[in-house]
Amino acid sequence: MDTQFFEHIESEVRTYSRSFPTIFDQARGAKLWTTNGTEYIDFLAGAGTLNYGHNNPNLKGKLLEYIEHDGIVHGLDFWTDAKQDFYRTLERLILEPRGLDYKIQLPGPTGTNAVEAAIRLARKVTGRHNILSFTNGFHGVTMGALATTGNAKFRNNLGVPAVGAQFMPYDGYMGEGVDTLDYVEKALDDGSSGLDYPAAVIVEVVQGEGGINTASNAWLKRLYDICKQRDILFIADDIQAGCGRTGKFFSFEHAGIKPDMVTNSKSLSGYGLPFAMLLMRRDLDIWQPGQYNGTFRGHNLAMVTAAEALRQYWRTDEFEREVQRKGEIVRERFAQMAETLNQAGHNASERGRGLMRGLDVDDGALADRITHGAFERGLVIETSGQAGEVVKCLCPLTITDEELNTGLDMLEASVREVVAG
Amino acid sequence: MDTQFFEHIESEVRTYSRSFPTIFDQARGAKLWTTNGTEYIDFLAGAGTLNYGHNNPNLKGKLLEYIEHDGIVHGLDFWTDAKQDFYRTLERLILEPRGLDYKIQLPGPTGTNAVEAAIRLARKVTGRHNILSFTNGFHGVTMGALATTGNAKFRNNLGVPAVGAQFMPYDGYMGEGVDTLDYVEKALDDGSSGLDYPAAVIVEVVQGEGGINTASNAWLKRLYDICKQRDILFIADDIQAGCGRTGKFFSFEHAGIKPDMVTNSKSLSGYGLPFAMLLMRRDLDIWQPGQYNGTFRGHNLAMVTAAEALRQYWRTDEFEREVQRKGEIVRERFAQMAETLNQAGHNASERGRGLMRGLDVDDGALADRITHGAFERGLVIETSGQAGEVVKCLCPLTITDEELNTGLDMLEASVREVVAG
Amino acid sequence: MDTQFFEHIESEVRTYSRSFPTIFDQARGAKLWTTNGTEYIDFLAGAGTLNYGHNNPNLKGKLLEYIEHDGIVHGLDFWTDAKQDFYRTLERLILEPRGLDYKIQLPGPTGTNAVEAAIRLARKVTGRHNILSFTNGFHGVTMGALATTGNAKFRNNLGVPAVGAQFMPYDGYMGEGVDTLDYVEKALDDGSSGLDYPAAVIVEVVQGEGGINTASNAWLKRLYDICKQRDILFIADDIQAGCGRTGKFFSFEHAGIKPDMVTNSKSLSGYGLPFAMLLMRRDLDIWQPGQYNGTFRGHNLAMVTAAEALRQYWRTDEFEREVQRKGEIVRERFAQMAETLNQAGHNASERGRGLMRGLDVDDGALADRITHGAFERGLVIETSGQAGEVVKCLCPLTITDEELNTGLDMLEASVREVVAG
Amino acid sequence: MDTQFFEHIESEVRTYSRSFPTIFDQARGAKLWTTNGTEYIDFLAGAGTLNYGHNNPNLKGKLLEYIEHDGIVHGLDFWTDAKQDFYRTLERLILEPRGLDYKIQLPGPTGTNAVEAAIRLARKVTGRHNILSFTNGFHGVTMGALATTGNAKFRNNLGVPAVGAQFMPYDGYMGEGVDTLDYVEKALDDGSSGLDYPAAVIVEVVQGEGGINTASNAWLKRLYDICKQRDILFIADDIQAGCGRTGKFFSFEHAGIKPDMVTNSKSLSGYGLPFAMLLMRRDLDIWQPGQYNGTFRGHNLAMVTAAEALRQYWRTDEFEREVQRKGEIVRERFAQMAETLNQAGHNASERGRGLMRGLDVDDGALADRITHGAFERGLVIETSGQAGEVVKCLCPLTITDEELNTGLDMLEASVREVVAG
Repeated sequence: MDTQFFEHIESEVRTYSRSFPTIFDQARGAKLWTTNGTEYIDFLAGAGTLNYGHNNPNLKGKLLEYIEHDGIVHGLDFWTDAKQDFYRTLERLILEPRGLDYKIQLPGPTGTNAVEAAIRLARKVTGRHNILSFTNGFHGVTMGALATTGNAKFRNNLGVPAVGAQFMPYDGYMGEGVDTLDYVEKALDDGSSGLDYPAAVIVEVVQGEGGINTASNAWLKRLYDICKQRDILFIADDIQAGCGRTGKFFSFEHAGIKPDMVTNSKSLSGYGLPFAMLLMRRDLDIWQPGQYNGTFRGHNLAMVTAAEALRQYWRTDEFEREVQRKGEIVRERFAQMAETLNQAGHNASERGRGLMRGLDVDDGALADRITHGAFERGLVIETSGQAGEVVKCLCPLTITDEELNTGLDMLEASVREVVAG
Repeated sequence: MDTQFFEHIESEVRTYSRSFPTIFDQARGAKLWTTNGTEYIDFLAGAGTLNYGHNNPNLKGKLLEYIEHDGIVHGLDFWTDAKQDFYRTLERLILEPRGLDYKIQLPGPTGTNAVEAAIRLARKVTGRHNILSFTNGFHGVTMGALATTGNAKFRNNLGVPAVGAQFMPYDGYMGEGVDTLDYVEKALDDGSSGLDYPAAVIVEVVQGEGGINTASNAWLKRLYDICKQRDILFIADDIQAGCGRTGKFFSFEHAGIKPDMVTNSKSLSGYGLPFAMLLMRRDLDIWQPGQYNGTFRGHNLAMVTAAEALRQYWRTDEFEREVQRKGEIVRERFAQMAETLNQAGHNASERGRGLMRGLDVDDGALADRITHGAFERGLVIETSGQAGEVVKCLCPLTITDEELNTGLDMLEASVREVVAG
Repeated sequence: MDTQFFEHIESEVRTYSRSFPTIFDQARGAKLWTTNGTEYIDFLAGAGTLNYGHNNPNLKGKLLEYIEHDGIVHGLDFWTDAKQDFYRTLERLILEPRGLDYKIQLPGPTGTNAVEAAIRLARKVTGRHNILSFTNGFHGVTMGALATTGNAKFRNNLGVPAVGAQFMPYDGYMGEGVDTLDYVEKALDDGSSGLDYPAAVIVEVVQGEGGINTASNAWLKRLYDICKQRDILFIADDIQAGCGRTGKFFSFEHAGIKPDMVTNSKSLSGYGLPFAMLLMRRDLDIWQPGQYNGTFRGHNLAMVTAAEALRQYWRTDEFEREVQRKGEIVRERFAQMAETLNQAGHNASERGRGLMRGLDVDDGALADRITHGAFERGLVIETSGQAGEVVKCLCPLTITDEELNTGLDMLEASVREVVAG
Repeated sequence: MDTQFFEHIESEVRTYSRSFPTIFDQARGAKLWTTNGTEYIDFLAGAGTLNYGHNNPNLKGKLLEYIEHDGIVHGLDFWTDAKQDFYRTLERLILEPRGLDYKIQLPGPTGTNAVEAAIRLARKVTGRHNILSFTNGFHGVTMGALATTGNAKFRNNLGVPAVGAQFMPYDGYMGEGVDTLDYVEKALDDGSSGLDYPAAVIVEVVQGEGGINTASNAWLKRLYDICKQRDILFIADDIQAGCGRTGKFFSFEHAGIKPDMVTNSKSLSGYGLPFAMLLMRRDLDIWQPGQYNGTFRGHNLAMVTAAEALRQYWRTDEFEREVQRKGEIVRERFAQMAETLNQAGHNASERGRGLMRGLDVDDGALADRITHGAFERGLVIETSGQAGEVVKCLCPLTITDEELNTGLDMLEASVREVVAG
């Protein structure tokens, strides 16, 4: 396998090719194949980008048709047929049924770009600069978004101090029995706390990169109310947890709240195409023309597949129920694996929501051995958390039960091997 | 035409749909068609993203084939066949012939992302924080890149002061007879100038958004030498001026320099697909794994078309010569239009390089009237410059002479109409 | 009384003249007299600057003698006789007996200047930028120090976001039963907490401006150990709590710790003269010559009185014991006043250490009424805390028992009046 | 001489004791004596702090009297008799005759504190954050002021990037024939220049630390007009050049302008006592009570001597004329020394205004040899400029002709010795 060429020409910054040092060639649904034909089941799925699987055949036809017909591929933020269809479909199938009266902004086609836009608009609307973020939060690595991302790997690498955000403890961060929002609320109402009165909070309902930490509905609802009572905007970062991953289209639906802004990306196009979106409460849209821009905003191919994905999966609640059902399968199997590990003296537990599931083994090296063993068995799966201590299941939501169980079997075999020492 | 729906649902931040308030549907080469069949010639070309034209048929086949075959579309930064082909082709047809021993980093698929990565690496390599940027420079709007972008529209909108860059006057900024590098050099060598000793300079050879300001080869070479002598990294931002736009693949080739880093995006995929690349001198690649990341880094569809574009247009120097030839046509016609305007008492002039050309009419409102009149005649063309005073030609490099002349005729007709009052 | 002239010519930024709208003329010990001869007892004492009372006669003679003899008053940071005497006396009477092997830096003669120097040195030594500060901390208002000061009144007024510090909850901030250092320790050891690994912590043992919040010895010791174990510098800001105010020369002596750096000012000169000092662990002194400067560093008149104050009060532990004894008197009387208030339905309590005492009445308006009533009775006393809810006793440490009791009687009378409604 | 003790206990940050490694004891007028009786003439004068000489006998009496009488020494910002007298005297003798309707703010008693206050108020008034500063400007080293100070020695030492200011070239910075304000004006009016529209400019009429660079009246007037036309506040930093140093009380009087704010310190007390003042146009005083504070604001001893200094020297214009006359003496002698140096192949010139004079020898090592030789002959004199290349005369304005000539003779002897090699 010619990986030397890659090592010769590609920057040392590369990561996933270190965990999975092979050359991939084809993919379909929950499966990947390498150039030499080896097959893998994919529990990584583009870190949550491929909720509908690789090269979803329902979307592929529309994509090919659009390209063949010479539809507009790139038109900056021109109005196009494809954009119209996407907007209408989003409004009809997602926003209206959920009572969300949002306007849509298409920033550059990456999640971090949507976060930068959200932060900037929050500051513009409120005249305040501070964004309240949470421990273990991940919101992107361009400089504005990075100020809200907790990970030292990126922050230390910025070369200047991150500016414009302050961190507060996420749900559960201070252990059982401490509601971290007591601290948040006190600090907000205390003019000498050092907490600059924020323009907004930005929060993930389930922290994907942070280790599948899951905020309770009660905590989220209280945070939301704290914001409402104090004229602080609530930004839900649904980039990884959105598009059905938790069993609802938006992850915050479980808590019964309506954020002021929502960032979305990753699985939004449904086909792995770069795409990102900022939804904002109608009255917050005080942008002047062109105050935020980017060459690839409004990627039309992504809008074609995004609209089709909505039509295919979000006309009824069947898809949601399927995700919840499969999530239960993963939950049970992860609980068993945790039990296996605990019996061997480790400190493991499962957590998550829907098909966003983590097996926390409390030890990054142990987690690495488990995912490495899984890869040898044919499963692509990664870790997350501040020390990489959480084995993370982000399989396609469209995965078949058979594929899911096969993948889980591979993982369990690896767990058992590790336990056996 | 149903543009009301767009106004209802789309953020006020939209821009190009204000200049061109119609719904586009199809495009091929240098032509665009609206849903009701109106045809336009495109001198905007995705603000420099469509150097090879819309839906270039030479690339389209490869793209369709790859999608049909279920090639990897999204794989984070996995190694793939498509990536291998792109890297090899880039090395063979572009880097090696130009004696450039670069390593490649694929950040998120937007230019601003490449700039953020370049800045961060420059700081990491040098241990200094300051990036020297130039008046009227545009390098993106995410916060890190924005510190190097001069435009107040974005800077004032950031909500916090931009951090980490300082500005110096670009070539010609202080008028005839003043070499702005005298000031740069003095300030660099003066420990009390207030100029924090920089990690790097970032510069565009031709400033696209800034008004088609064109640095002379002598100025660029001197800036390059100033940097070399002082251990300051030289970053060429070739996002808009690269991929042949100025008559060479890289815009800096004219000046005979080899930048330490090069950012590329826009026309890199050749098909309008989101894609960006950072090239860096081999020894600068001190990234640790994963220190810079992003979900859509390494967009495989873009790599498929990018590799094919290189094969189609960069095996010989014929394409370069064609660009230069057509650039002359534009130059001559713009000079005539400037003359027409000047005879009517305006203060107009032409400038630029290759097919990156500007007609500076010294008045934003006048430029708007000209481009508006051109649009009514069937030409999509935009302005740039700090007050929008420069009519900008960024037509596809593959435009036919007939299309080019038709477009220029439309523009000239609009100029004449404006002159006639 | 001609206060109109002051209102005409003096900026609206003035504060204490609003609480005490009269013109003062003379002062001695714990007493102040206005131009028209009204006498006041002073429980404010220059906000902790006059620990040895106004115009202390023991120091006054030395000061007059030095001035008469034309001793050097201003000599930048020249070596002078006065400086030599101060350094020697400080070393012999304060540092050596406490086992503190510090070097001395005299920055500009204000506390905030000492804090700026400490922060800068901590960054220089560690190569990290972040300073960990605590809720309700006050460390000065010049921009560098202000980043560590929690008070929104100053922070909101900075015009740019404060850069370079992050806040953590002070002892007791999260209520009974929560050791706030659990959170600090977890966040420090969690690479995704958003807490940039700090160069130093800066902490007040008793928070003067913050509301006489008093860290327990156990909390302080644990914080100190957390720092030691993690190579984080420990800066004790002893500007208000130092020079005997808490019953020891340094407030941190109670906890048995030896900070890496100590900032001192306010009562350091002993005579109310501008003066500040940074003490630093010998090995931390990596300053290059002149890297921190200021015209008034090394104020010789202040060194004359500072040395004499050390000789007068710090040869034995008698002075410390007296402060502790008087502190008990205040504690008891404040406890009684709290009881009086609580019986009337308020929520009051006392706290503090030595002669740094607070009566927290949980209501800024109530506290104002109490101090206003006290002023009418002849007592100068102020409030502190984020809402001004804490009546603060900072009487001279040299106050006589009679003066102390008279002052407390006045305060109690005001409390009773307020309670009576 | 016991300097070892100082080296043992005093931070390495010390500077002047390195140039003048002796222990000083007494001083009077323009003379200093060491502990062993060696006499020096003082051309440094506290870096411009002792315009009226050391221990000026006209002021000394008032100071002693005030202390003996137990006048208020420290009273935070209480109104006092001493303050009233200072304000009235300043208004009557300085402000009114010059038509300046200013309000007075007394920040902490250091120049940098006055600059921090001015910057903060400018931001508050305008709602903008940027402060325009000039190459080689020096405005203090606390973080807020440091953003406007050009010197890398301090800036590199800050540990974070300075925030909130941008630099422009000072008068003459780009050589003969280039009016640097052309650049400033263009950048201000160009929305893409990268110059954030400023709240204020801050400028020294003569740059003391920067190398006695002297702005022409025409340049200053034009800068002033540029600001007036664009609603940008003009802050004159008169900390070193004020109090008569240039031959007028305020250095900007020569140019016939009325700054919006003026910072003053150094010689303001007239006796070397820490003191600083911010003057502001009456309508700019939008401070809320207490938004800027500091323990030593309103140092009463300094106000006693400051008022007396005004009475002694500023009732008539005689003092101004004397300064101008003596300034001519220095100018002529410096011109001769420059000639001597130039004949020996060096590149020397003189510059300055009033008794703020520089001998630029274009070589820091050469300047050091000259001042070192002067010190051996009995003259205390220092260098300034970015490389320490300018021998700087800041002798007391009250120096006698005999002392002045003796000092100049010593300097000339040193110059001749250096020339002789």
